[in-house]
Amino acid sequence: MGVDFKKLALQYRKELLEKVIPFWEKNSKDEEFGGYFTCLDREGKVFDTDKFVWLQAREVWMFSSLYNRVEKKAEWLEMAEHGARFLMDNGHDGQLNWYFSLTREGKPLVQPYNIFSDCFATMAFGQLYRATGKQQYADVAKQTFDNILARQNNPKGQYNKLVDGTRPLKGFSLPMILCNLSLEIEHLLPEELVEQTMDKVIHEVMEVFYQPDTGLILENVKPDGSFSDSFDGRLMNPGHAIEAMWFIMDLAERRKDDALMQKAVKIMLDTLKYGWDEEFGGIYYFLDIKGHPPQQLEWNQKLWWVHIETLISLIKAYKHTGNNECLQWFQKVHDYTWSHFADPEHDEWFGYLNRRGEVLLPLKGGKWKGCFHVPRGLYQVWQTLEKLK
Amino acid sequence: MGVDFKKLALQYRKELLEKVIPFWEKNSKDEEFGGYFTCLDREGKVFDTDKFVWLQAREVWMFSSLYNRVEKKAEWLEMAEHGARFLMDNGHDGQLNWYFSLTREGKPLVQPYNIFSDCFATMAFGQLYRATGKQQYADVAKQTFDNILARQNNPKGQYNKLVDGTRPLKGFSLPMILCNLSLEIEHLLPEELVEQTMDKVIHEVMEVFYQPDTGLILENVKPDGSFSDSFDGRLMNPGHAIEAMWFIMDLAERRKDDALMQKAVKIMLDTLKYGWDEEFGGIYYFLDIKGHPPQQLEWNQKLWWVHIETLISLIKAYKHTGNNECLQWFQKVHDYTWSHFADPEHDEWFGYLNRRGEVLLPLKGGKWKGCFHVPRGLYQVWQTLEKLK
Repeated sequence: MGVDFKKLALQYRKELLEKVIPFWEKNSKDEEFGGYFTCLDREGKVFDTDKFVWLQAREVWMFSSLYNRVEKKAEWLEMAEHGARFLMDNGHDGQLNWYFSLTREGKPLVQPYNIFSDCFATMAFGQLYRATGKQQYADVAKQTFDNILARQNNPKGQYNKLVDGTRPLKGFSLPMILCNLSLEIEHLLPEELVEQTMDKVIHEVMEVFYQPDTGLILENVKPDGSFSDSFDGRLMNPGHAIEAMWFIMDLAERRKDDALMQKAVKIMLDTLKYGWDEEFGGIYYFLDIKGHPPQQLEWNQKLWWVHIETLISLIKAYKHTGNNECLQWFQKVHDYTWSHFADPEHDEWFGYLNRRGEVLLPLKGGKWKGCFHVPRGLYQVWQTLEKLK
Repeated sequence: MGVDFKKLALQYRKELLEKVIPFWEKNSKDEEFGGYFTCLDREGKVFDTDKFVWLQAREVWMFSSLYNRVEKKAEWLEMAEHGARFLMDNGHDGQLNWYFSLTREGKPLVQPYNIFSDCFATMAFGQLYRATGKQQYADVAKQTFDNILARQNNPKGQYNKLVDGTRPLKGFSLPMILCNLSLEIEHLLPEELVEQTMDKVIHEVMEVFYQPDTGLILENVKPDGSFSDSFDGRLMNPGHAIEAMWFIMDLAERRKDDALMQKAVKIMLDTLKYGWDEEFGGIYYFLDIKGHPPQQLEWNQKLWWVHIETLISLIKAYKHTGNNECLQWFQKVHDYTWSHFADPEHDEWFGYLNRRGEVLLPLKGGKWKGCFHVPRGLYQVWQTLEKLK
């Protein structure tokens, strides 16, 4: 293919360190009340001051992670601890149940109904503990992780609106995130719990949610892993499944499990081919596995995280297997992503495009897009490219 | 303008009675388990069998209403009672708290967290009582209405995820629906309660949610009616406000309140101008009053109900005021609606278009689109046109 990996690696590195991270350093810090602004317009101006715990925690994680992995820059550590202080003071209910959102001042707005707030808090404090060695951060990460395991079978608790027993389904998101989380905080857990959690989540993702007849992963299945012919049961989220596959590849690498690696690469490629929009390019957000109209009106939009996670999966798959199809797809998704999501005039990337790839919302950050997928993806792809020859 | 009202009236009448109602009669009845299928593809084939209480109740209302207002056809009454039996047997928890959704067989899927299920059940049984005189239907409507009034200050109950007191906001939907509901079931209520409810909801809609500085109605305001600079507080739903204005016009007509009528017509026109997409035509689904990116990814889509409700409001406004601007806008929205939502090849209308007006989902019915807005709108516009010269 004649791909110049060194040059490509430099492109990802420069975008990360010269355009994306400076955008968040410059625009997201709330000097007055602590924490971060994440609702930022195209140029970086704050358009809403609410603080979403997913995004607060993810930004703490991102800056801690840069400090741990790229360079011991004091500004990065201070940026991480700035968010961590706000979260410790305001982010939870006193029992480390993490709220969904807060006002600018830190008052709770939305109750701790969403277990992913807890997942991202665990990641944040686990990574910050690596950076600082401060025991309090380790304790928060560890206790929150225990809460997650205790709540995992009924994560929404009293806020669950489903009638018990009528159509029991389980969701892909939590086992998927636990794949990543078990590696993120393994330094805090007993070895046995780490191995046990990994065994369980690998089984769930690769055998329960994975459907052998289609070769694809569904978002919701019956407790025994079988198909539910309902809106939730038919739902496919290609970006989600593709993202999970690089978590699995990381686990397969760690365990030197080649069969698991091969299976993850195959599922990833099959999902990408299934989710690719042949007419306008890009990857659909949601699909119905039987081809019926999905419930989600945003189904055919093109989202930043879907494409960035796909780049990570493709380049890791190529690195681990040398499969040329992965490299060809990487080139294709790279071209689409850089020509549609990157903003030629301002820093950071657009998040939401319509099916045609035109900008749907001009924001750089919002309720769901923060300092996370773009920089994490640039870092992961850069690092992987550097190891290629 | 040279508008041929008779010819136009015939167009609406024929579409209702020859294409839309037959579509639901032919495709939506579940002969095996009772109730209606509403997830119907372009040709009318069932693609999902779940039963959503909003749509079950709305179809009962629609067929009862046709029977009461258009013709005493036994098939229409039987169709209405077919759905009513299913709802009486399965739709509520025994205390007339109405579930959100049920399986095909009638088992509850989603708890009664959504007060609009109760609102549509009230409408359905109130209208069916008019058709049949059966006391049991009157009792269900009346008791459900009492439940709504009792729950109106905290409609979601235990399922409310907002932390009490941090940012108290009240929503436009419930007072708006109560405008319509108070007229729908006034034959079941003591006159004093009807007048009192009408006074209250007219005040809420026209003075609390209406913002004099912009001349527009917001979806959520602080308890005192002032503006909240937050995602929810900045939210505009032009179709919602425009629909509410014909409910208010009906109330103004009944009360012979010309000032109220004039105000409703003005708000409706101002909202329509604000919500109209000058580039591609059609009315946006959601807007942010300050022009920031809305949370809703579907914000620029064109939805059937928005356009149909606007046609009702415009033709009623023209009838009551003779304002030529209303007639000009009626022509413009009529042309857009018939050329984009009506399906030249099959019965019933499309529901969801992208910003450009292309079909986004080819369904004729789904989780939110049933036998309601299209036939109610065709009926309302037909009846209003018939009175014009």
